[in-house]
Amino acid sequence: MNDKKPIIGITMGDAAGIGPEIINKTLSEKAIYDICHPIVIGDAKVLADAQKVAHTDLKIRPIKDVIDAVPKYGVVDVLDLNNIDTEHLKMGQPQAMAGKASYEYIEKAISLALRGEIDAVTTAPISKEALHLAGYNYPGHTEIFAKLTNTKEYAMMFVAEQLKVILATIHVSLQEAISQIKKERLLNIIKLAHQTMKKFGVANPRIAVAGLNPHAGESGLFGQEEINEIVPAVNSARDLGLNVSGPLPADTLFYRANKGDFDISVAMYHDQGCIPIKLIGFETGVNITVGLPIIRTSVDHGTAYGRAGLKLGTGNPASLIEAIKIATKLACER
Amino acid sequence: MNDKKPIIGITMGDAAGIGPEIINKTLSEKAIYDICHPIVIGDAKVLADAQKVAHTDLKIRPIKDVIDAVPKYGVVDVLDLNNIDTEHLKMGQPQAMAGKASYEYIEKAISLALRGEIDAVTTAPISKEALHLAGYNYPGHTEIFAKLTNTKEYAMMFVAEQLKVILATIHVSLQEAISQIKKERLLNIIKLAHQTMKKFGVANPRIAVAGLNPHAGESGLFGQEEINEIVPAVNSARDLGLNVSGPLPADTLFYRANKGDFDISVAMYHDQGCIPIKLIGFETGVNITVGLPIIRTSVDHGTAYGRAGLKLGTGNPASLIEAIKIATKLACER
Repeated sequence: MNDKKPIIGITMGDAAGIGPEIINKTLSEKAIYDICHPIVIGDAKVLADAQKVAHTDLKIRPIKDVIDAVPKYGVVDVLDLNNIDTEHLKMGQPQAMAGKASYEYIEKAISLALRGEIDAVTTAPISKEALHLAGYNYPGHTEIFAKLTNTKEYAMMFVAEQLKVILATIHVSLQEAISQIKKERLLNIIKLAHQTMKKFGVANPRIAVAGLNPHAGESGLFGQEEINEIVPAVNSARDLGLNVSGPLPADTLFYRANKGDFDISVAMYHDQGCIPIKLIGFETGVNITVGLPIIRTSVDHGTAYGRAGLKLGTGNPASLIEAIKIATKLACER
Repeated sequence: MNDKKPIIGITMGDAAGIGPEIINKTLSEKAIYDICHPIVIGDAKVLADAQKVAHTDLKIRPIKDVIDAVPKYGVVDVLDLNNIDTEHLKMGQPQAMAGKASYEYIEKAISLALRGEIDAVTTAPISKEALHLAGYNYPGHTEIFAKLTNTKEYAMMFVAEQLKVILATIHVSLQEAISQIKKERLLNIIKLAHQTMKKFGVANPRIAVAGLNPHAGESGLFGQEEINEIVPAVNSARDLGLNVSGPLPADTLFYRANKGDFDISVAMYHDQGCIPIKLIGFETGVNITVGLPIIRTSVDHGTAYGRAGLKLGTGNPASLIEAIKIATKLACER
């Protein structure tokens, strides 16, 4: 048993999005305080306002330093960056003020995590458009975390129920993804998959590697990438003692992985991995950046400007709750 | 109500595979005889032998012509091609004798369907290797049906629970699939999707078209195929009055389609469509060839030589049962 619960820093994300609402809902769950000590890194006024939409009744307590936080269910400690003018915040649309603020929450959370003041970071959704309006040209959270932690070898991983998937290529065209399928890259991803599952507490992780082509190329009949790149990467990983299967036909691989045949699957390209993840865990999926010196988990959905703007209170906190649970698990295993 | 039940010709598939076992199990289901009149096109002796493995107690009645069939639950009418020497049949392995026989069942079924003696064909699994050993160089059933019915515009479609998916490209490398994503081809597939759903009895089918690239290309940031080919195809289909959405990001599309937002989804390549189908309906998925002048449905699994060879009797008839139900539905709507 771990008496000292890990401190999870939750970045508030885009103030005009669904983040503040689902954070309030999440922190109304006693179960969260049973496993960790959550601290929001955001704007206290925005969070307080969002309680009307979330229909929650929490005490929002602004703090200036992590050391001032007092873990207590019912009281939300907010490391208050006080960087949103709520009078001028337009819900449900991208705007420079909220984009800049969301970047500052991330920057703060990363520096706290690097200094060990918090044990993990869980992120609420940001708006890429808002970031761009504020002058930050990042495709998303993942790249900001890589940059600010000076990390070169990293990958996106997703968890949905018992399905865990790591992507060999990310936000590039399918054509470009094919050209990035090279032995060295794949071997690095397989190693990351192995290390990550060890951090999840799995002693000898069973890693499944997907093929790129239909039927995993059917012995070269439908493409050569399996023969030229994927098989050599799998063989090299086996030489290192890793428990790797593949390349396997992607259509049956994810079915098998989902029923427990493998601990983690390596997808060759974005949609190959994200189709099964969204299908299994649309509401509960979690995104993890692996390879960083710190722990970072995230909701696997966007700002939901449509819902957030309408202040319907229909935001589902399930993905954020899962993301905090996984961050906690990883922090405890460390 | 349709008093005259449609006649469904079930081809026995590869005699050394799981086909004969699952056919016996399927025809032990009273529900099948309630909706259609099934006739097996195969080898009566093989089917009788398979009852030991299937643990069924049906009367196998060889017939020479469809007209001799008498629909009666408990009696299986087999149009007996008598083309397997059961003394020399080796279960669980590809062999020329069984490959040749499986081709003959298909050939017979197609000619009966073209002449209108049967209303639809449902196929049990064949072995591509066995076909090749017998000198038939086809990648699978689909291409045999296209060839023998002289069909140029056809596509593979899959049904799993309420998810229906049609493939724009089939058994080619992912690289080649990308190069086949052209407006004209896509427009044809969208039209086939529309016509097929009309045959399923849907008046104004909601068709979702997937993007090729991550996030459906994100406005050209991750690839140009959406802008250059897919959007123009979708627009042309709309000009024809079809109810088409897209191109949509593939990861959320199949989640949405599965919960009922669309009647049918157009996948750009094999794995994009087959990953969600296998995940939703691994045991119950059905494969349909669309665009043919006849109705053809199929199990969405292979010969399962491993299980068939061991004579375990663990073959699951669920996919065959679904395939017959869908063939019946399509035959009744026609």
